[in-house]
Formats: sequence, structure tokens, C-alpha cells
Amino acid sequence: MEMHFDQHISRQFNEDLESIKTEMLEMGGMVARQVADAVDALANADSELAEKVLHIEEEIDRREMALDEHATLIIAKRQPAASDLRMVLSVTRIARDLERIGDEASKIAKMAIALTDEGTSPRGYTEIRHIANAVRKMLNDALDAYTRFDVASAMATLAEDEQVDMDYRTAVRELITYMMEDPRSISRVINVLWSLRSLERIGDHAKNICEQVVYLVEGADIRHGHEKNLKNF
Amino acid sequence: MEMHFDQHISRQFNEDLESIKTEMLEMGGMVARQVADAVDALANADSELAEKVLHIEEEIDRREMALDEHATLIIAKRQPAASDLRMVLSVTRIARDLERIGDEASKIAKMAIALTDEGTSPRGYTEIRHIANAVRKMLNDALDAYTRFDVASAMATLAEDEQVDMDYRTAVRELITYMMEDPRSISRVINVLWSLRSLERIGDHAKNICEQVVYLVEGADIRHGHEKNLKNF
Repeated sequence: MEMHFDQHISRQFNEDLESIKTEMLEMGGMVARQVADAVDALANADSELAEKVLHIEEEIDRREMALDEHATLIIAKRQPAASDLRMVLSVTRIARDLERIGDEASKIAKMAIALTDEGTSPRGYTEIRHIANAVRKMLNDALDAYTRFDVASAMATLAEDEQVDMDYRTAVRELITYMMEDPRSISRVINVLWSLRSLERIGDHAKNICEQVVYLVEGADIRHGHEKNLKNF
Repeated sequence: MEMHFDQHISRQFNEDLESIKTEMLEMGGMVARQVADAVDALANADSELAEKVLHIEEEIDRREMALDEHATLIIAKRQPAASDLRMVLSVTRIARDLERIGDEASKIAKMAIALTDEGTSPRGYTEIRHIANAVRKMLNDALDAYTRFDVASAMATLAEDEQVDMDYRTAVRELITYMMEDPRSISRVINVLWSLRSLERIGDHAKNICEQVVYLVEGADIRHGHEKNLKNF
């Protein structure tokens, strides 16, 4: 039996696709908020805000599971092919990265609580702010590129991760030097180091989202430096 | 545990399913080897072995991409439903966890190279060995549970992650105390701390694989502590 791929069988199917895309973008908005709140909680030693971040994590986890179930149902019922299938798969993959970003935000929130308890760190907040701003921009731009199916913007955003990695390594080196000069600061500065690492990871996940934009639009898998799979660039 | 897969339309389809399962298990074997080699490289300050780990990472990445493409083709061509679809999806999800485990192994290998360059750490190798053994066992048991569709074994393996997390936290506290007593050790001990964190992550990914065994066999999503979705336990 011949199947008419690429042409949607029904309006219902179109609505299904729009619906999981909307679910994912809503989740993206929540996660972006989590990252912002976690960083604010850390910078201001605000354990109340940090607790809020930890509380909302459960809601994000629940949403990822619901989205996964929804996507599996769509595949089973509608049997999408080609670009429609890529849409469903890219949404679930992005949802998984968003959930991981939420995890990292929670880790930063836990560090904020630890720092409220044992006294704030004498160093590292400038670096936190700087790298946090960069990865928050990456995340927003990645989701925006997905909304607009904008491959050029996704590729530009993806490239920003290199600078984030460099800034992260510089910050770690400086904080290690600082701890050696003032060993009493170690346990507090370590919390800042873990938070920086979480932010660096968030950059990696934002990069993954950009790669899914390229996969969705071009059908090319450019992960792990395989940009050559994208013939137009 | 008996598996009741849907009646497959064709022998070719059965072969497709077996084939991606085999691809994933081969990838699992490679990744388990990577973790073992990375830990050995760290413990023995063996930068040659560490370089080998970094080299093989590319092959693992390539395999994950090939598996993903293969799985997408199977979904598009064969339009699997219910348990067959779960099989395909669980294989791609596990492949993604395996690729992340490979990433963590590479991070450990990089720490091994750093420690070869700047002198080995005075502390932390006992903890590395201990936690490495625990997460390597978890990974092997998780893949084994997948091969045998063994939900009980997956649940038992999944539960081991709690002990790993506890041992990890204890080790971190001890190493922080040690650094405070001997600040000259900081930059070397920090590399051990990062490696411990990578091992703890590998435990998380092994746990994810166990959750996919439950998803595959029972159709229940038990991630994020939702064990209640599994009615038989």
C-alpha cells in the first residue's frame, strides 16, 4: 500500500503537531525562567527563591513525561513520515534537553541554599553573572530559532558555545588560584565552581537545541562537529 | 517476565528491530570499556590510555548518529505501534544516555591527562575506584536487564544509584577538608573532584537506562520518581 508521505492526512494531525510544539515551547519558557531565578538566588543568597526553583522542577519533569507520551501517541496513531516525523522527534529531543537544563538550574539553586547556610563566597559572582547572561541568551535564541525554523540563527547561536567554554575555563582557573591564596574560602568557592559548571552545561544543552533546529529544517544531523552534513553552509 | 510484542508484519521488520537493538548493545559494550579505560588512565596516570579514550569517543558519537538515523527510518517505513514503537524509542533513548556516558568518560580521560602533566593528586583515588566500580556494575547490569527484558533486575539496579550519590557526597566533603589542610594540593585534587562528579553522572545515566527497561516492558514511564506508574511493584 502506498502512503502519501509529507501530506498531512487530516487537520487533526496538523493540530497534533502544533500542540506538541506549543507544549515544548511553554516548557522552554518555564525552564528559561528557572535558570534566571536560580542565578538570582545564587547572586543574592536568596534561599526562598532557590526553594521555589526546586519546587518547580517537579512540574518541568511532569511536563517532559506528558510531552513524551503525547509524541509517542502521535507517532503510533498518525504514523508521520519524513519532515513530520522529524518535527515530532525534534520536539521530544528538545524537551529532554530542557529537562536537563531544569536539572542544572536545580543544582545551582541547591548551591544557593548551601551558600546561604555557610556564608556567601568571597569570589566568583562576576563570572557567574557573565556566563549566566551568555547561556541565557543562547537558550532564548535557540528556542526562538526553533519557532522561526531559522537555521542561520541556530548556527550562529550554536557557535557562541565556544566562547562560553573559554570563559568557563578562565573562571575556573582564577577561582582555583584564589582558593590557594585563601584556603578558608574553599568550601564556599567550590559551590561557585559547581554552579559555573552547571551553567557551562546549560550552554551545551542550548547548543543541542540549535542542532535540532538544523535537523528539523534540513534533515541533517550536525551533532559532534558534523557540520559537513549540512550542505548549504 | 513474558514479552507480548505485537505481531510483526514481516520478518524484515523483526530483523530491523533486532538490528538496532544489537547496534545499541554493541555501543553499550564500547562505552563500558571507555569508562573502565578512563578510570584506569586516571588511577595509573596513563596519558596514552587517556588519549585512546578520547580517540574512541568520536566512534561512539558516530554510532549514536547512525543508530538514530536507522531508528527514524524504521519508524517512517514500518510504522510500528505499541510495544514495537517502544522498542525503537527505548533504543534511541538508551543510545543517547550511552553517548553521554562516553562524554563523561572523555572528561575523566582529560583529567587523567591534566594529572599526568601537573603531578598526580595526593588523595581521592580510593574514592574514585570505589565509585567507579559501583557505576560500572550499574551500567553492565542495566544493559543486561535490557537484553533480558528483566524489570525486577532493572528496578534493583536503579535503586543502587542512591548509594552512589551518598558515597559521592561523602567523598567530596572529605576532599574539600583535605584541600583546606593542604592548599598546594588544590589544583590537583580539583581534577579528582571533577572526575568523581563525572562518575556520579554515569550512575545517573545507568539509572536512566534502567527506566527505559521498565518503559519497554511495562509501558510505564517511571522517571523522576514516578514509580507509582508501575502498577506491579
